[in-house]
Order: sequence, then C-alpha cells, then structure tokens
Amino acid sequence: VVSARRLPAVLVLAGGASNRFWPLEDKPFFPFAGVCLLERHVRMLAALGCERFVVVVRPGLEGRAIEVARSAGAAAATIVKQDDALGMAGAVLAARFALESLGEVPLYVTQAQDVVEPSLHEAMLIGAPSAFGTIAAARVKSHFPGGYLVVEGERIAGIVEKPAPGSEPSDLVNLVAHYFASWRPFADAVAAAYAEAAADDAYERALAALMKREAFRPLVYEGRWQALKYPWHVLDVADMLMDQWRRGRETLPEGYEVREDGVIMGRDVRIFPGSHVVAPALIGHGAVIGHNALVRGSMVGARSVVGFGSEVARSYLGEGVELHHNYVGDSVMADGTSMGFGGTTANYRLDGRTVPSTIAGARIDSGREKLGTVIGAGAKLGVNTSIMPGVKIGAGAIIGPNLRINRDVPGGARVLDDDEYGRF
Amino acid sequence: VVSARRLPAVLVLAGGASNRFWPLEDKPFFPFAGVCLLERHVRMLAALGCERFVVVVRPGLEGRAIEVARSAGAAAATIVKQDDALGMAGAVLAARFALESLGEVPLYVTQAQDVVEPSLHEAMLIGAPSAFGTIAAARVKSHFPGGYLVVEGERIAGIVEKPAPGSEPSDLVNLVAHYFASWRPFADAVAAAYAEAAADDAYERALAALMKREAFRPLVYEGRWQALKYPWHVLDVADMLMDQWRRGRETLPEGYEVREDGVIMGRDVRIFPGSHVVAPALIGHGAVIGHNALVRGSMVGARSVVGFGSEVARSYLGEGVELHHNYVGDSVMADGTSMGFGGTTANYRLDGRTVPSTIAGARIDSGREKLGTVIGAGAKLGVNTSIMPGVKIGAGAIIGPNLRINRDVPGGARVLDDDEYGRF
Amino acid sequence: VVSARRLPAVLVLAGGASNRFWPLEDKPFFPFAGVCLLERHVRMLAALGCERFVVVVRPGLEGRAIEVARSAGAAAATIVKQDDALGMAGAVLAARFALESLGEVPLYVTQAQDVVEPSLHEAMLIGAPSAFGTIAAARVKSHFPGGYLVVEGERIAGIVEKPAPGSEPSDLVNLVAHYFASWRPFADAVAAAYAEAAADDAYERALAALMKREAFRPLVYEGRWQALKYPWHVLDVADMLMDQWRRGRETLPEGYEVREDGVIMGRDVRIFPGSHVVAPALIGHGAVIGHNALVRGSMVGARSVVGFGSEVARSYLGEGVELHHNYVGDSVMADGTSMGFGGTTANYRLDGRTVPSTIAGARIDSGREKLGTVIGAGAKLGVNTSIMPGVKIGAGAIIGPNLRINRDVPGGARVLDDDEYGRF
Repeated sequence: VVSARRLPAVLVLAGGASNRFWPLEDKPFFPFAGVCLLERHVRMLAALGCERFVVVVRPGLEGRAIEVARSAGAAAATIVKQDDALGMAGAVLAARFALESLGEVPLYVTQAQDVVEPSLHEAMLIGAPSAFGTIAAARVKSHFPGGYLVVEGERIAGIVEKPAPGSEPSDLVNLVAHYFASWRPFADAVAAAYAEAAADDAYERALAALMKREAFRPLVYEGRWQALKYPWHVLDVADMLMDQWRRGRETLPEGYEVREDGVIMGRDVRIFPGSHVVAPALIGHGAVIGHNALVRGSMVGARSVVGFGSEVARSYLGEGVELHHNYVGDSVMADGTSMGFGGTTANYRLDGRTVPSTIAGARIDSGREKLGTVIGAGAKLGVNTSIMPGVKIGAGAIIGPNLRINRDVPGGARVLDDDEYGRF
Repeated sequence: VVSARRLPAVLVLAGGASNRFWPLEDKPFFPFAGVCLLERHVRMLAALGCERFVVVVRPGLEGRAIEVARSAGAAAATIVKQDDALGMAGAVLAARFALESLGEVPLYVTQAQDVVEPSLHEAMLIGAPSAFGTIAAARVKSHFPGGYLVVEGERIAGIVEKPAPGSEPSDLVNLVAHYFASWRPFADAVAAAYAEAAADDAYERALAALMKREAFRPLVYEGRWQALKYPWHVLDVADMLMDQWRRGRETLPEGYEVREDGVIMGRDVRIFPGSHVVAPALIGHGAVIGHNALVRGSMVGARSVVGFGSEVARSYLGEGVELHHNYVGDSVMADGTSMGFGGTTANYRLDGRTVPSTIAGARIDSGREKLGTVIGAGAKLGVNTSIMPGVKIGAGAIIGPNLRINRDVPGGARVLDDDEYGRF
Repeated sequence: VVSARRLPAVLVLAGGASNRFWPLEDKPFFPFAGVCLLERHVRMLAALGCERFVVVVRPGLEGRAIEVARSAGAAAATIVKQDDALGMAGAVLAARFALESLGEVPLYVTQAQDVVEPSLHEAMLIGAPSAFGTIAAARVKSHFPGGYLVVEGERIAGIVEKPAPGSEPSDLVNLVAHYFASWRPFADAVAAAYAEAAADDAYERALAALMKREAFRPLVYEGRWQALKYPWHVLDVADMLMDQWRRGRETLPEGYEVREDGVIMGRDVRIFPGSHVVAPALIGHGAVIGHNALVRGSMVGARSVVGFGSEVARSYLGEGVELHHNYVGDSVMADGTSMGFGGTTANYRLDGRTVPSTIAGARIDSGREKLGTVIGAGAKLGVNTSIMPGVKIGAGAIIGPNLRINRDVPGGARVLDDDEYGRF
C-alpha cells in the first residue's frame, strides 16, 4: 500500500434505527455471501492500510460489531454505541471519547451501508487533493434527492440539501466519505452545531461552518454506489457486489469461485439435472438447486434450497431459505424463510405503473417497474399463496395456503384467511 | 395459371358483426402468423389469376381492407362497406354498384372466414362443370347444421337449410363458393328476393329462384374446411393452416421455415435450454420460449413470451402475449394478453362432459371434450388465477390474483374478487 | 423347497373392516404394481411348498379372494367369509369347518396385511424351534403399541398387550405368524375363549390358555415388517416392496425390470424429454411421465399420467391416476384419481410439528414430519387446489378449483367453495 497522505483513523457510521429497512434489520450487518456490509467496509479500508477504526453502532450490537471488525482484519477497533437516533452528528459525538485516545490524527468519516467500489476509498486516502477537507461526490445525470455540492473554483462553498429539481447548484452529490486533516476541528464543529440545535441536520450545519474557515475540495467518484435505505436496495447492492466479484474487482468471499460462465459458486453446492443457473448469480455454500429450477440475476444464500421447478430471478435469498416450485422475482427473502409449492411473488402491476410500497407508515413509489416482496427472517408462506408487488412480510409471520397478500403483514402475525391482508 | 374457364370477378364477403366470435373481433381480419384470413383468401385467388375483387366489409374496416387487399396482391380491388347486418344478400346489394363498373363478367362469391384449401378455388375456377352456376359442396359423414343440396341427376334442384337429422336430402353441404356465369342475373335475383322480404334468408331464396331458371351443378370438395364462427374455431383453423404449411401445400408466411421436426419457426426466435417445442407448432417472429417451457400443437404469435415453466397445448397465442409458468390448453389468447405466474386455463370438466360456453347470451355446447378459455386483446390476468372451461374474458379486462373465473367477464372489467364471476 | 418340519395348512386372516384405512379399502386387496398383498402373501407361502390355504375374508370379497388365491398359485384354497367383525378369534371360528376337512395337520396362522420378508415364513416353516407352538416376534428398539412376549427361559410364558412404555416384559413384539403343531387344540382354545366372552381379545386369551398347557417358543425375526393399518402405511409398504424388488430379494411383478439406476420399470412406459425418474421408483405398465416431470421415491401405477412439470415424491399413485403440473408428496392417490394444473398436497406443517390426521372420528398423530394426503379411488380435484397435511379425500369426491381443503371430505362429496372443508 502506497500512502500518499497520512493514513487517517476511520470513523464508521454503522448505527441508526433501520426503520425504513423493515422487515429487514440492521443495515450494516446485512450479509451478502456471508459477509456483512460492515465487514466488507472495514476489510476494504484495512486492505488500504487503515489501522485505527471507530465503529458506531446502535445499542445491543456492540458484540457483533467487535466480531465483525476482528474478522475484517481491523488492527485496532473501538466500538461505540449510539444511544439516541440523532443521525450522523450524534454518532460523531458518541465517538468523541474514542477519538481523543487516538491523538491528533486525520479522520475519514464513512458509512457502512453506503456501498461503493474500493476505488473511492483508494482515491480518498491516496490520490485526494490537498486541503483541510475532502468530500467525495458522485456525478449524477438526473435529479437525486441528496445533498448537492456548491463548487466555487476548486473549493466547495457549501452543500444544498435536497434542492428542488432544476435548481441543483451542480451535478455533484455528497457521499458520506469525508476526509478531515485533523479530527478535532471537525468534532468541535459538530458539537457546536449540535449544541445550537439538537436536530437532524447538525452534521450538515457543522460542515457548512467548517467550510467557512477551512478549504474543502471535492473528489469526484465515477464508480457505482448504492445506499442501503429501503429494503429493495438489497437487490441493487447484491447486483453490484456480484458484478464486482465477477469482474475480479473485489476479493471473492471465502470459498467462492467464479465459473467460466460467470456464475459465482460456493462449496458443496448440489445442482440437480434440468436446472439452470444463469449469470449474474451467486450460489452459497451447501445450497441445493433442485431439478428443473432456474436461478438468474440472483444471490442464493448458504444452505438454501431452490426446490424442483422454482424460478429465482433478480432476487436475494438469505441463508437456509426453502423454495418449492415458486417464483421469486425482484424480491428479498431473509434467512430461514420458506414458501410452499406454487407460492409466488407478483412483481409487476397489471396497470404497468411503478410499484409503490409502505415505508414507516407512508406510501412511497419505489420507482421500480418490477418489485416483488421483502420477507423478514423466519417467515413461512403456505402453498399457492401470492404476495402482491411491493407488499412486505414481517419476520416470523406465518401465512396460510391459497391466500393473496395485498398489505404488509406485521412480524409474528398468523394469517389464515384473506380478510385482513388480502383485500384489494 | 391455366384458365379453363373465363376468370371471374371475385366477390369476397368479409362483413358481418362477428357477435358470436366475441371476445375476438372481425373474423376476416383475424391473423394467423401475421396473415389475416382475408389476406390469405385474396392471395390464394390472385395466385390463380383472379384480378378483380370486390370486398364487402363492415363500416370502419374499409381502410384495413384496402391495405390487406393490396398486401395480398389483388390487381384491382374495390372495397364496399355493408351498413346493415342483413347477411349475404345485403352484402351482394351493397356490392352491386361496384359490380356494374366491371361489365358483364362471371362472378365468384366467396367468404373470407370460411377456410378451405386452395384446391377448392382451383377446381371452381378451372375444373368446374359447365353450367350457369356452380355450387361448391362438402361431403359430410354425419349431420351438419348447414344447407344441404338437393341433387337431381347432374343438377342442383334446391338447397334445404338445416334439415332435421335423418331427413337430409343428400350428403352434400353448401359451401359459400358460388360461381355464376354472369353476375347480373344473380344480383337481380338477390335484389328481387330482398325486395320480397328483407329477411336473413334472401340470398338462399335468390339461389332457389335462379335454380328454377338456370342450370346449377355441384362441385364436390373433399379437402378440409373450417368456418370461423365461434371463437374456439380459431384453434381448428390454426391447426388446419399449420398442417397446410407443414406439408408444403401452401406458401409459408414470410420469413418462416419448417424445421426438420415439423415445427414452423419464425425469425429471431429465442429458445431457452430445457424447453420443448413439439410439432405441430408455429413460433412467431421474435418470440421467446423460456427455460423448461413446453409448446405443442400450438401457434405462438410474434414477440410473445412463453416464460419459464409454461405449457401451451393445442392453443393459439396472438402477438405480444406474455406467459409465465402457466398452462394454456385448448385456448385462444388474443394480442397483448398476459397471465401471471401459476395462472391456468382449466380445459376439462371434472364430470367429463363436453364443454358448454355462452354465445351471444345463450348457452351452447361446444361439442369439445377439451376447451379452455378465449381471452380478448389486451386482457391481463393475475397470478395463480384459474379460468374455468369455456369461460371467456373480454378485451382489456383486468383480473386479479388467486381468483377463479367461472362466468364470462365483459371487456374492460376489473375483477378483484370471486363475488361476481367466481360463483359456481 | 426343503421342509424341515411338516408343512402346515395356512390360515390367512384377510377379513376385517379396514375402517382405519379409509378412504382406501380392503387392505388385503390393496395392490402394489398390480399385485395385492393377499396375492403376494399366498404366493410367498406357496413358493415355500404350502399347498392348503384357508383364507378368511369379509362378505362380498369371496369371489375376488378365489381369483387372487388361484393367481397366486395356491394348490388348494378354501375361502371363508367372516360375517361379524370380532377380530381374529371370529376368523378362526369361521374357518373351523374348512379346517375340519383337512384332517389332523399343523396350522400356520398369518395375516395378509402384515407385510414381512419371505425369510420370516421360511424360518417359521423350516428352521423354527420344535415345540407345540411357535410365535414370530420382532425385536423392537423403542416402545411399540403391540403385544409383548413374556419369555421364561426358552418358553413364552404369556403375551402382555400394549404395556405402558417402560414396563415392557421384553423387547419382543408378537407378529401374527403363529405355528401350531396341530390345529385342533388351538381352535378349541379359541372357541372356549370366545364362549367365555365374545370380546375382541378372545384370540389372545386362547393363546394364553394354550401356553399354560403346551410349550410355545419365540422365533425372532430381524427383517423388515410393516402392518397396513392407517392409509399412509401404504407408503411404508411401497417403500419396503420397492426395496425388496430392487435388491432382488423378491420376484419382480410380471413384466417389470430393474434399470441400471435402480428404477423398476414396467412395459410400454413413455418417458418424455426433460423428465427425471430417480430410484427408488417404480413406473407401472403403460404409464406416461411427461416433459419436465420428476418422480422420486414413488410408485406410479399402470396407465397413470404424470403430466408436464409434475413432481411425485415419496408417494403412491394407483392405476390410471392423472396429474398435471402438481406436487404430490408423501401422499397416496388411489386408482382413477386426478388433480388439475397447479393442485398440490401440502405435506409439511408450517409449525414443524408431526402431522395429525382423523382416523375413524378421532384425531391421531401420524408421527410423520411429512405427510400429504390420501385420496380415495376416482376422486377428482380442480386446478390450483391445495390439500392440507394429513387431510383425506373420500372416493369419488369432486373438489372444485382454487380451494384449500383442511378437513376430511366424505366420499362422493361435491366441494365447490371453502365454506365447509376449507376453514382453519
């Protein structure tokens, strides 16, 4: 590793409530081929030479975070829990004590659930412009609901949060990959902003204040990036990671190999006659692809069974998922879920409109022409049951046979008729 | 083309309301492998040397008729619209003005939706007996609800419409392929009969009157013929045409080839591994046969997708039809229709009786042991929905998921529960 | 055949009401690959040299029993009908007149629906210990609800019926394979016990009385045995017989051959491309395995059709069964039954508990983690209909489409909605 600038401590923001990720949980810990996003993130940075990590997680996840950091090869990692949910500023404040112990070092602030290619971090750590602060920015071609950089000459003069379409100050959108030549002025600015108003935008206000005193430069990132915000973003991340692995741009997870046809294959996989696995696809360790099944554009977790006659298209299956003659399209099924024979995900509206979904109580448009379901861990569906596009099933729910599910089902619910969740 | 008799003008009856053809429309314009029956009809006669055509269509279809006649290679075609629905006599009257302009020529009266082999027309135009009139007749082995010829010596003495079974005057049934040595006495007779009583049987009364004055002889046709009356007759016509094409008895539609196994294959077809196409079958240009699908005894229209795990048996799919893991058996799906995963056509009654259907408000017996559904253009069906035998779906209808449809659904209807159409 | 002891007359108990076998009928006459259990039983004993058979059947089955005994190669068979249902003692009493005509011979009492390997009978007839009576006994490793032998030295001192778990007097369970050096003392003891009390246990009381006067010795049988009591035992018997045939331990039914891969294949079977038959499996004469179907661990009866895309796993299909894109798992479908497209047997409870079923009005635990359905002869199921685990369908029932069946359906019922049998 050639270090063109002083290697920073890394502050990894991996907290937050993941409400909008329901029925999935804990975005930074969400696994792809056995590796969660936090692990991948730390591993990427450790491979570039970073040694000191401060990882902020929500209470209860400290133990898992320690294991993950260790497994990812972090030389030294401090795990900090963030008690309240007040976003990035709260996370920085929570991390302050840990930062103090590191002395006067540069700081690289990142977010585990923002999935980017390693080249972004490499550029930020090695090739970034010399300035007090460097802000990674993605060049966007159409409007994006994020923070736009205001660029004056070589400097960033400010960030405009979610401008109206048409009034964007640039085509550069702020990514949470922020380099500060010293952590203390940054942390002080955050503390000041937070003291002023303990609101959601304290981190952004701190940046704005700092930009008045110090030089900030943008580093434009041209690679892929995908934030894990809504649960269907799992599909985009899986797609991106399979692409990275297939092209050899990132180290394959342990025990995986890329077949000649581009399929990424785990150990001890059993593929039965008459089945088809079409790249891009990843088949986890010990998984079973039954007779006459079809897997394409999908990630199948370890020990999952894609039984006879099933089709899995553009979907994510966690570990130990059991299918039997189903169609799973544009859908996410978390660990330990199952569908009985003939159960299916409807993934396309008959009226052809993009698929809406209910997120934290509000109806939003996913923007996807095809979107199936998202099923929380351990939920089980009966035979010949259909889930409507964009409808989600909570963890541990039990859904009976021959039903149609047209509304989100809470975790642990037991649904045996169409009365409550099947209405149109 | 050897012309043993003077080549006639051809009057093509292509009007009529097609009520009994619902939810399909406009029988003469119904396409098979991109060629509608009217086009095939005109093309066949043009190939035998006929040059002058008068085509009677219902109002609104004049433009399409012109295009079709041109595309079929008619040297000169006059399109006539028939305002009222009073059957064949009305059509002849409507055509009179056009006939006048042709001068004193023989006339060959035919019907586009009566599908016969080219040999019938060849015999009528070249080898027919010399007489004022020649009536094509099919020899039938069992009772048929049509007009039976009364034959005396070499002459036809009359036609008995729909005699009771057992009292048929012969085994020869009148086909609408009538040659008259001159059009004028025929048209005059029709006008006289119509003036006498503007009823449905005016054409037949005109023939009866003419037969008293002029010699009529039968020309017995031993080939296949199939009238397109009820919508499921599309299946019989498709079957007949595939047979003609496969045996090389008729020119293949443009761009098609017969594979060694007898399958008629269009251009740019994609056939995925594990699928099976079994002759007789025709796969239209740009169609997709997905993994592990089965097509047999069926015609699949251009750009249709027979998705993963679907079976299409003895059926007709129009253009742009989308299937996904369905069974379509003994059924007709018009252009732009689709079925969600697991949707199916029930095509066999559990009591084993022949399948009834509702035609123009009346319950009739189709006489078929196996009959699935007929789906009008653009209708879309949800996942895991079943259509009962003989039940039809109107154009543009939207049918929700996990339903059973046991009654005809009107065009444009939106069906989301079993209350109205699912009762038994 | 070397006969180490005097060859006995054989009393075959093949009566009884088969109530608990519903919706299947007449256990001794239940066929496997065209051979019913009674035929197999008599054939096995005839092959060992037995010539005289007395077969007790319930009224109405005498004719079938004669045919079966003849077909099985019994040199001399007397068929006796048992009018009342009073178990084994009643059967012995009914047989007395027939036994008298045989003179003073030893007697071997057996039961046709207890399926054992031929080695048991061989041991009983040739290698059994010398004593007045020999009782075959299975050594069990865990508690079994049967009669346990009380063994004192080399003698059987008694039989304890259904002892509480933990208080079994031995690990030897009484099988109905009882040898008596002379039939008369045995029959007298049964008559005396019956006279004392015409109750269900008269046979057992007779044995107990005899054991006080005569020496009885156990013959321990280490092979497989399977009583046909509940209808799902058909699956165990089918499994056992396929194993016997495959290993060459029993003569294959007429016309069958074992393929190199272990599949037992009948005559004139048609196997379509893309289908898979995985041993253990037996495919009956004239059966059809459609495109892309899968059969494994199953017996498929003669002339059955396993249509396109169906899966039959660990199941028994009788003769002339018709499937079309179904899943039949851990299920029994009797002769002439059928399922429409997409119909399925749910064979696993979503709560993971062993599957209960209703037997003669009482709810019992089958002890099976996977159990589908049992369908009586001639019953027909509509498309996309699901049968819940352990639920049974009576002979001749008609079940409509898109239903879920969660309660046993009586024979001949016509079920068109979920109201009565679909409730949860």
